[in-house]
Amino acid sequence: MTEPALRSAVEIVAQLTVEEKASLMSGLDFWHTEPLPRADIPSIMLTDGPHGVRKQTAAGDHLGLNSSVPATCFPPAVALGCSFDPELVERVGAALGAEATALQVAVLLGPGINIKRSPLCGRNFEYLSEDPLISGVLGAALVRGLQSQGVGASLKHFAANNQETDRMRVSADIDPRPLREIYLRAFERVVRDAQPWTVMCSYNRINGVFSSRNPWLLTDVLRDEWGFEGLVVSDWGAVDDRVASLAAGLDLEMPSTGGRTDAEIVAAVRAGTVDESVLDQAASRVIELVQKAVSAADPEATFDADAHHALAREVAGQSIVLLRSENDLLPLATDANVAVIGELARTQRYQGAGSSRIEPTRLDNALDEMRSLSGRDVPFAAGYALDGSDSAELVEEAVALAGKADIAVVFLGVPAELESEGFDRDDLELPHSQIALLDAVLLANPNVVVVLSNGGVVRLSGFAHRVPAIVEGWLLGQAGGGAIADVLYGQVNPSGRLAETVPVRLEDTPAHTNFPGEHGHVRYGEGLFVGYRSYDARRLEVSFPFGHGLSYTTFEYADAAVESDGDLTVHVTVTNTGERAGAEVVQVYVGVPDSSVARAPRELKGFTKVRLDPGESQRVAVQVRRDDLAYWDTRVDSWVVEGGTYTIEIGASSRDIRQTLTVDVKGDSVRVPLTMESSLGELFQNPAAAEIVLQAFGSMGGDVGIDESVLKMAASMPLGRLAGFAPGVEPEQIQQLLDVANQQE
Amino acid sequence: MTEPALRSAVEIVAQLTVEEKASLMSGLDFWHTEPLPRADIPSIMLTDGPHGVRKQTAAGDHLGLNSSVPATCFPPAVALGCSFDPELVERVGAALGAEATALQVAVLLGPGINIKRSPLCGRNFEYLSEDPLISGVLGAALVRGLQSQGVGASLKHFAANNQETDRMRVSADIDPRPLREIYLRAFERVVRDAQPWTVMCSYNRINGVFSSRNPWLLTDVLRDEWGFEGLVVSDWGAVDDRVASLAAGLDLEMPSTGGRTDAEIVAAVRAGTVDESVLDQAASRVIELVQKAVSAADPEATFDADAHHALAREVAGQSIVLLRSENDLLPLATDANVAVIGELARTQRYQGAGSSRIEPTRLDNALDEMRSLSGRDVPFAAGYALDGSDSAELVEEAVALAGKADIAVVFLGVPAELESEGFDRDDLELPHSQIALLDAVLLANPNVVVVLSNGGVVRLSGFAHRVPAIVEGWLLGQAGGGAIADVLYGQVNPSGRLAETVPVRLEDTPAHTNFPGEHGHVRYGEGLFVGYRSYDARRLEVSFPFGHGLSYTTFEYADAAVESDGDLTVHVTVTNTGERAGAEVVQVYVGVPDSSVARAPRELKGFTKVRLDPGESQRVAVQVRRDDLAYWDTRVDSWVVEGGTYTIEIGASSRDIRQTLTVDVKGDSVRVPLTMESSLGELFQNPAAAEIVLQAFGSMGGDVGIDESVLKMAASMPLGRLAGFAPGVEPEQIQQLLDVANQQE
Repeated sequence: MTEPALRSAVEIVAQLTVEEKASLMSGLDFWHTEPLPRADIPSIMLTDGPHGVRKQTAAGDHLGLNSSVPATCFPPAVALGCSFDPELVERVGAALGAEATALQVAVLLGPGINIKRSPLCGRNFEYLSEDPLISGVLGAALVRGLQSQGVGASLKHFAANNQETDRMRVSADIDPRPLREIYLRAFERVVRDAQPWTVMCSYNRINGVFSSRNPWLLTDVLRDEWGFEGLVVSDWGAVDDRVASLAAGLDLEMPSTGGRTDAEIVAAVRAGTVDESVLDQAASRVIELVQKAVSAADPEATFDADAHHALAREVAGQSIVLLRSENDLLPLATDANVAVIGELARTQRYQGAGSSRIEPTRLDNALDEMRSLSGRDVPFAAGYALDGSDSAELVEEAVALAGKADIAVVFLGVPAELESEGFDRDDLELPHSQIALLDAVLLANPNVVVVLSNGGVVRLSGFAHRVPAIVEGWLLGQAGGGAIADVLYGQVNPSGRLAETVPVRLEDTPAHTNFPGEHGHVRYGEGLFVGYRSYDARRLEVSFPFGHGLSYTTFEYADAAVESDGDLTVHVTVTNTGERAGAEVVQVYVGVPDSSVARAPRELKGFTKVRLDPGESQRVAVQVRRDDLAYWDTRVDSWVVEGGTYTIEIGASSRDIRQTLTVDVKGDSVRVPLTMESSLGELFQNPAAAEIVLQAFGSMGGDVGIDESVLKMAASMPLGRLAGFAPGVEPEQIQQLLDVANQQE
Repeated sequence: MTEPALRSAVEIVAQLTVEEKASLMSGLDFWHTEPLPRADIPSIMLTDGPHGVRKQTAAGDHLGLNSSVPATCFPPAVALGCSFDPELVERVGAALGAEATALQVAVLLGPGINIKRSPLCGRNFEYLSEDPLISGVLGAALVRGLQSQGVGASLKHFAANNQETDRMRVSADIDPRPLREIYLRAFERVVRDAQPWTVMCSYNRINGVFSSRNPWLLTDVLRDEWGFEGLVVSDWGAVDDRVASLAAGLDLEMPSTGGRTDAEIVAAVRAGTVDESVLDQAASRVIELVQKAVSAADPEATFDADAHHALAREVAGQSIVLLRSENDLLPLATDANVAVIGELARTQRYQGAGSSRIEPTRLDNALDEMRSLSGRDVPFAAGYALDGSDSAELVEEAVALAGKADIAVVFLGVPAELESEGFDRDDLELPHSQIALLDAVLLANPNVVVVLSNGGVVRLSGFAHRVPAIVEGWLLGQAGGGAIADVLYGQVNPSGRLAETVPVRLEDTPAHTNFPGEHGHVRYGEGLFVGYRSYDARRLEVSFPFGHGLSYTTFEYADAAVESDGDLTVHVTVTNTGERAGAEVVQVYVGVPDSSVARAPRELKGFTKVRLDPGESQRVAVQVRRDDLAYWDTRVDSWVVEGGTYTIEIGASSRDIRQTLTVDVKGDSVRVPLTMESSLGELFQNPAAAEIVLQAFGSMGGDVGIDESVLKMAASMPLGRLAGFAPGVEPEQIQQLLDVANQQE
């Protein structure tokens, strides 16, 4: 059957009235676009992701309170980020797309790729990493997978939505370099690499301007610089001035405003305050989105819940991070005398609260899966109640059980009510009752394996050194219980790596004294130095560094080399030197020791995950794009690759560097004309001009010659101020000199 | 003899031509104002301080290169700040005034009260403290002393000149609270308390605007808010646009521009771009300054160089900080078998380089003074060369000498060429050759007393734990050598206290990743958390905390109490429990644990120095002004005292708190009207409005009641966005509600 040729969106728009076009500018209800039957434009559904389809059936609400139809709850982004595996994430995206198609959802609201600026951010479980490369590469993978099924992604939250506190008003006050290099960089990569159908603007302000009505953000940067071709949708309720947001480049407001803001648009067009062409463009984008959705829709589609559950388990297994593994406790033998302790083993935490909350198709817990996998009735004691109350009885029972076992596997984690969209955490602490339990168990049996369930980083420095094995299980989705069992019993060799640093103390976190701001502003005072960039720059001890993750086997690195043809290709031979098959994440960090601008000691610029059998070697090639070497140069408002010697560090984590190289990189030419505000020091870099000025400077008075210390002191003097210090020099003479110098350059 | 009544400046100005008035707007030459003989207005001299009179005789230059006439070099501000003694500083001011009068100098360019944001700032030796209270109290004292002699002060550098790197262009990008609470606060105190005759604008920009042409800074804040009545003078060469700077409130440009900028003013007045009344006002301020200077001038005045040298020694002795004193090495007995090691004992460093460099009337060195005081020919070895070169021979000689002595006094310090106006330091390190010497001496003789000479803080963490006694001698002026001898031999019981933290590592300093910025901007990203405020907030170990300083005796604190009558008076009984007379600096720190805004854990809000004989007790009263309890509230752009419970910590340092109290402080009433951008959470604080809104919120859809977690999540929602989530609610209804609530408040 041949599809009838669709009229182009522009052709359709040309035949619509202002009112009709304006009606497309906001939702029909909470989750659907407005249809336009006269023009054969149906309504399509956008609904929450990012790690599952949350299709609400009854009256919608955005706060995750009402029930939705069952769908697979894949591992949330906090876990996906630790997979360091774009192919795997792309498969998750494709599965999400299949489910969305089956549920007649046209656009899934994800991925969320905001940077984890502070571990306190209540929504960190929905985000991938503290690092923009991880966020960008994995975010693009999710978009690719999703859109391969004809379902649109909604890249969110654009931009700088890095906290929940006062999220609908707060101004994220960020300097140009961190804004570009940290907070926008992942968005740029996803847009350029994967063209999401939609981008969702964030609630917050950036430098005083709401994202929903920021023409610089939504048009200049997103479309003109990055070439975004899709539709910009508001976060639900993010629009505070519909007309201004339309003019800024926001196409679709969600949810419905009952026609109120559509009418505002009509009035503005009639009054001439907004040109009708702006409305036309936005309307055509809505129609294009609907057309894409309609052409891909398949009312017959279903999805294989069992296969997706299996995928969810596989992905979870690849995302678990083995933080510590001493004394050969892990992996467990299936016949080991194990006791499982901790309510969270039975009552699995697998996702966070808020708009991303999925009604799962099934739900595993670790206890049952461990019993199933080992074929033993592994004994269990709850040890604590999830409400945080202290219970001597529960502790006593757990201690008794631990004392009889060879190994105690203790499940700890953050209570569900502390991690949610809508508010931030106050601290990084596990509940007191859980720590008390752990201490008691350790006294009874030092052979403890801790398994963690948490959406945001928790402080481990209180016990990490006393516990021989720690498994970071994050929130792993509906099949996470099985994945934990897989890792504990060695069915899966852990290969997750930390996509965010585990700090020693909250006070060490880079945003500590700035987060979350007050009175409507939060200053990103740490600038570029977010996550490991900060811990490295301040040479601070951490509990577990960015990129860290152990395996049941070991890997060696050898023979690193780097090729440059603009982009860099880093080669290294990795060998599995242990007894088990496993996967290593080869991480490439780049530094510029003699940079003329502030730089982190090292930045992740490439990575790849390689699977190796015991004894197997592989020559791995990691690509580093030249674009990723650039910094944002505020003198010219543009990305610039600085020329010079770059260090290439190849490691198993940001603090386990195995091979170090250097490479000379040819810089971009940056032309900054000399002006009256240029300094003497800058002028002296121009050989012709330097000589003339040295003469002038010599007339400054006194009998002192020009020596080095004078030059050092005077180097920062702007040329326009020379007159006050060198009376013989007239401004006109300086200007002539500059003209000559600028021509010569 | 009766002085003829002076005509008022306004009367004089009324009779001047535009050209005549404009001629007063810039200097005659480098150091003098323009005279106007027709109106009997002579020229007066302004010249560099701040710790001595630097009167150049030949062609002037501002870079400190040419010689000046001899004057007493008092201890630079780095030392004065550590005296914690405003009365002493006022005596220094009076002595400076006497010398200025004798040298026919009308205005001395000082004090410099910029905050030591980073220990790397090359000019920190000219500044008092990392704390605004110390800077303000001691700055005001110096102004009072100076002006008591009829010599004008020039409070500088106004404002936010906290680095030398790119100082003539860089924009200090500072948020409102740190700008007000840290960087302007000391200026505000000095202006309000001491009315300096002049204020000198800084070279740099603040938030993009040059201080020299910042009407907010020079007029709104300085004059309208603080009531400054004097004249604003430019830092030498700080003016980049004379007409704009005149309009902004800059009265006098220095140095001379050969009439060029005067002509620009004339042209602007003629063109009407500047109102003539603005010129009149500035001209009258210049004339008033000249009149004050003339009426106080005394051509017959002389000064007593010997008495001033003695004062310089006394002040230096009160400023030395005994950092560490173990094993009873100090004080030295006059008959002790002491070896003096280190070139700096013989070649005293006593001031920094740049515009503050004084030609001293005399110059002591520590070695000679120790010999004189002990009456012994104390043996000496240079140990190192000041050029930083390594010399095995010098080390060998020093080690041999140390081995024969009971106690080795090792003089270490920062080479002169590393500390200067005009550039910042790169690190906090002592020269490698000096550390190598110290290590070698310690091997030969563990009984080492280190005496430090440095204008900025140096890292001591490499050796402080291995050296039983450390004397921080800063730069102590021309009589510093004698003062060091006084302290070493116990003629003076040390009572200086650190006015800046000695950090463990450069990487720990709060501005580390932001300092000194690049491409014309430096972000004060650490915000309020400068100095000890940051180390405390981050709970970081330091080598020696702010306020620290040992004595040869001991003090106990008892019976603290606080009285409140708006201002607070903190009482505490201090007892000298040791064997020697000595002085204790009682420090009062205030905190607001439950503050609604960001706060340092503790801030110095009062201090006093009390001298006690052995066994003597004194009931000390420390005043804390209510104004000093206020924070800058960005919602209302004004100082606000928050109501609540304040902690009062009384201590011998910021980390040696001896007594803790709490006091309830009644807050200022702050009226922030509710608007459509107010949040639900803010609205709920209004009881009447809360009930109405709860009803509206209940209609949000679904069958879920209003529970606490929903409220927590929804608390940040702006009222104007409610419509999207509660379809029954119209914006008009919300506005009505707000009107009611705002009336009720």
